[in-house]
Amino acid sequence: MAERDARVVDFLYELGLLKRHKRTGWVIAGIAEPESIADHSHRTAVIASAIAAMEGADPQRAAFLALFHDSQETRTTDIPHLGKRYLKATANTEVTREQVVGLPDALAGVITDAVDEYEARESPEAVCARDADKLECLLQAIEYREQGSRQTQPWVDTSLASLTTDTAKQLAREALERGPLEWVHRTREQKPEL
Amino acid sequence: MAERDARVVDFLYELGLLKRHKRTGWVIAGIAEPESIADHSHRTAVIASAIAAMEGADPQRAAFLALFHDSQETRTTDIPHLGKRYLKATANTEVTREQVVGLPDALAGVITDAVDEYEARESPEAVCARDADKLECLLQAIEYREQGSRQTQPWVDTSLASLTTDTAKQLAREALERGPLEWVHRTREQKPEL
Amino acid sequence: MAERDARVVDFLYELGLLKRHKRTGWVIAGIAEPESIADHSHRTAVIASAIAAMEGADPQRAAFLALFHDSQETRTTDIPHLGKRYLKATANTEVTREQVVGLPDALAGVITDAVDEYEARESPEAVCARDADKLECLLQAIEYREQGSRQTQPWVDTSLASLTTDTAKQLAREALERGPLEWVHRTREQKPEL
Amino acid sequence: MAERDARVVDFLYELGLLKRHKRTGWVIAGIAEPESIADHSHRTAVIASAIAAMEGADPQRAAFLALFHDSQETRTTDIPHLGKRYLKATANTEVTREQVVGLPDALAGVITDAVDEYEARESPEAVCARDADKLECLLQAIEYREQGSRQTQPWVDTSLASLTTDTAKQLAREALERGPLEWVHRTREQKPEL
Amino acid sequence: MAERDARVVDFLYELGLLKRHKRTGWVIAGIAEPESIADHSHRTAVIASAIAAMEGADPQRAAFLALFHDSQETRTTDIPHLGKRYLKATANTEVTREQVVGLPDALAGVITDAVDEYEARESPEAVCARDADKLECLLQAIEYREQGSRQTQPWVDTSLASLTTDTAKQLAREALERGPLEWVHRTREQKPEL
Amino acid sequence: MAERDARVVDFLYELGLLKRHKRTGWVIAGIAEPESIADHSHRTAVIASAIAAMEGADPQRAAFLALFHDSQETRTTDIPHLGKRYLKATANTEVTREQVVGLPDALAGVITDAVDEYEARESPEAVCARDADKLECLLQAIEYREQGSRQTQPWVDTSLASLTTDTAKQLAREALERGPLEWVHRTREQKPEL
Repeated sequence: MAERDARVVDFLYELGLLKRHKRTGWVIAGIAEPESIADHSHRTAVIASAIAAMEGADPQRAAFLALFHDSQETRTTDIPHLGKRYLKATANTEVTREQVVGLPDALAGVITDAVDEYEARESPEAVCARDADKLECLLQAIEYREQGSRQTQPWVDTSLASLTTDTAKQLAREALERGPLEWVHRTREQKPEL
Repeated sequence: MAERDARVVDFLYELGLLKRHKRTGWVIAGIAEPESIADHSHRTAVIASAIAAMEGADPQRAAFLALFHDSQETRTTDIPHLGKRYLKATANTEVTREQVVGLPDALAGVITDAVDEYEARESPEAVCARDADKLECLLQAIEYREQGSRQTQPWVDTSLASLTTDTAKQLAREALERGPLEWVHRTREQKPEL
Repeated sequence: MAERDARVVDFLYELGLLKRHKRTGWVIAGIAEPESIADHSHRTAVIASAIAAMEGADPQRAAFLALFHDSQETRTTDIPHLGKRYLKATANTEVTREQVVGLPDALAGVITDAVDEYEARESPEAVCARDADKLECLLQAIEYREQGSRQTQPWVDTSLASLTTDTAKQLAREALERGPLEWVHRTREQKPEL
Repeated sequence: MAERDARVVDFLYELGLLKRHKRTGWVIAGIAEPESIADHSHRTAVIASAIAAMEGADPQRAAFLALFHDSQETRTTDIPHLGKRYLKATANTEVTREQVVGLPDALAGVITDAVDEYEARESPEAVCARDADKLECLLQAIEYREQGSRQTQPWVDTSLASLTTDTAKQLAREALERGPLEWVHRTREQKPEL
Repeated sequence: MAERDARVVDFLYELGLLKRHKRTGWVIAGIAEPESIADHSHRTAVIASAIAAMEGADPQRAAFLALFHDSQETRTTDIPHLGKRYLKATANTEVTREQVVGLPDALAGVITDAVDEYEARESPEAVCARDADKLECLLQAIEYREQGSRQTQPWVDTSLASLTTDTAKQLAREALERGPLEWVHRTREQKPEL
Repeated sequence: MAERDARVVDFLYELGLLKRHKRTGWVIAGIAEPESIADHSHRTAVIASAIAAMEGADPQRAAFLALFHDSQETRTTDIPHLGKRYLKATANTEVTREQVVGLPDALAGVITDAVDEYEARESPEAVCARDADKLECLLQAIEYREQGSRQTQPWVDTSLASLTTDTAKQLAREALERGPLEWVHRTREQKPEL
């Protein structure tokens, strides 16, 4: 039991590293204080549930896949597109299997199932979660553009081109036309101060 | 449709603010570059699934509750314990209802259901997610201590005292005895370089 | 005496928290590394003395009011406009009264007097200090715009609209036409290196 | 008038640079994200008013002197003690005179008077403000120590040795014995949540 | 021997301060998280070797001069152009002589020779290294402009005007026409992922 | 010519990315605002010249090798030890050959020669530069420890164990016994202010 608990605690400390690793693409783009992998993963999970709900898939399942979709990066780091020309990475499904060694079966099972399903790119929820990953990047690229960067357009273009569901494509088109802070101003107009 | 999509995009931009808001407790503690609310929420969801799996509850449901457990803080900010003596906040369930106005029913429904269940503190998954919120704080307090801070003990104590499940209590005890980087060193010993 | 000194030291440590709390509006706007409340309060005090001097009021008094105008935010944090729809805050004058409990009367008195006068919005110095608060925000919004942000216009507009003295209005108009670094270039042209 | 307003705006933009310049001593000490000169100046003004109130001097005057005590550093930067062996600086009173050229007489006068009085080191308020500068540094050194640094003791020692008023010495002794966050915990114990 | 080693270690710790001191010009320009002096010195050395190779001078010698060209700033800090009107600095050659006191002769010699040669501005390698210093600043100004700042043009202009070699002038012209990230996109097009 | 200049500019922009990429090991260790690869490379070059001078090798050559020793990481990123179990990287000599395509022969030649020599680990200067890489890491680990981290010991141990020259071993022993700021205090005692 103590050994099993130690493995779970190790796993939770390991996943905490996603808070400290910054998304490498934004470092290359010169963003000051870029988001962490955990930051990205959190909104990706929210977006996955949104796309799934709108596509008639299971929002909770899609969010769960998204939650772990970059969890291997505690060990592989976030290799940018450029780096993939110089680095050959172990498959994510294999990395996950090593990460969950020693965890209680019930826990190891749900995680490896989620990663396997995401990497297989077949189930509707995997498709929604993958689109969420790209749409999240697109939203963030727009936000960084509005915060000043003149170098985020390639991230917008690449993300847009890789979307596959109608819902994600429509949301992307809408996102490109709305300001990231319109929700603030709209809310303030609709509701008085207490 | 366009109006509905605009609402969804607004909601996704709104949730993105959780990446920018820092956890206020750590600001008070004097942590340099503290984690974001999204950082915290991401690992909380992971921990919720772990506790749920070990407690015989539904890991995916617990993670989903955790994903949205601080989602109201885009509007209310992260009020520290001290601030709760000077600020009276609207109930989270009510804030969520305003956040989802105009969203497709399928999406609004899963979110309000999750928030209602979390706030009701009754279902096993809500109990696991709430323990996850506290255990996440405890792990982060230990990590900040190891990174230098001499002021995180109150966060350890408060988190520890509020845990309710046996699993979370055991994991907390284990976490207090293990170093946050032991997983790195253990992995390196077990596996050779490619 | 020891108890009294402990209260003073506690108060000085408490006010130091204003260095760590970032101005929430800029966090929402997506500014990287935004200014602290102390940063803002310092220039607000300088501006208050400038407006007062030009309006025929007491510059020193206006600066003193400005120095403490956000001092309650150690306990209430800096609630953004959006948050005021969801949070009901204790009056600043009341928060200040709790902050100064146990301080020597001479010190407690000058602070509560200053806060009461500022909150009453009636004396010329209070009017100047309040305009200074808004003008400071406007200058900072322009500076962040020049540093890259495309999202500061609402802060310019709101600040501008709330100015009441002729001096502050004129300075704001001038500020909108001058670059924030013109003083550097002008000084360099006028004065040779040693 | 326009020319005069331009000068005032230039001066306010210039003073805003104190928000961006970090205190050089803390950079040398290796503090991550050290405070700005404006951060330091703000609490120095608060402390000056406290010492003055307790020493029977004019709190408002002492605060005003403190407000501008490092205002020349927009042009001279914050030269560390080490640097003073290699750099010969223009007198602060002279720098201030150049900074206020073109400002309305009423404004230029109050600022040069304050700087002259502070630099003369004679009036009770100047003495209190100078002690405030040192006591502020001591408090910050303690805070950085509690946040992790093992290198702040020289700043504590130097600050302590240069204090001159009984009040400042007593507060320093008290500060060395109290934790910087005790005020948080004490307040939470004394007051229930709303 | 122990004393000599202590001096070498002190020197290496001293040079490490160049990692913590930020380039002051960028602080004035309002760049968030500006580069360190070491960051600048590193690319300056690379550029010096490039200019020297293209000008028929010794690339290795030029790089070595560049490596130490700002090494005195551990003691003098990075005084901005504006500050040079208010601060009279000890000559760099003299600062270096104090820095190397107690170092082994072989080490002290190569460093003082390099600094003397750089400051004399006569050898082809010194000329290349000085142009590298300016060209590095120009490249960084362009990069910060692309990352959002609207205030870097004066740094571009000043750097450009002070270049002396044909190679540096040509590279500067080319740099002004190319995007800082074109190399990323070009490389990705030319080479497939592994 | 224009094409050749474009290649040189691309190369200089590419090397500038080393300022933005943080050293991954320190991210894992939880250091706030860790040094960049350029920061590390700069002091490594300084240390290489010091070790070489003391070992009777060519200081300038050793520094030149060190300057480029991590230059491939613009494309491969800084893979931590843990990651090397999951990522197979292209050889540095091969990455360099791709980086210098299109550069003038004189420039491409000096860079590929330097990288080949460093990677061959045979020449005295390569040996000194490699020890410098490790000693730099050891000094930085000590500095981060003094700045608060309790997690840098593994970096000290690993660096120490991999040193090969007597000089580097002696300097490491000395470094472990001296404080990183002793040079500041020593200098201040020896030299009066101007």
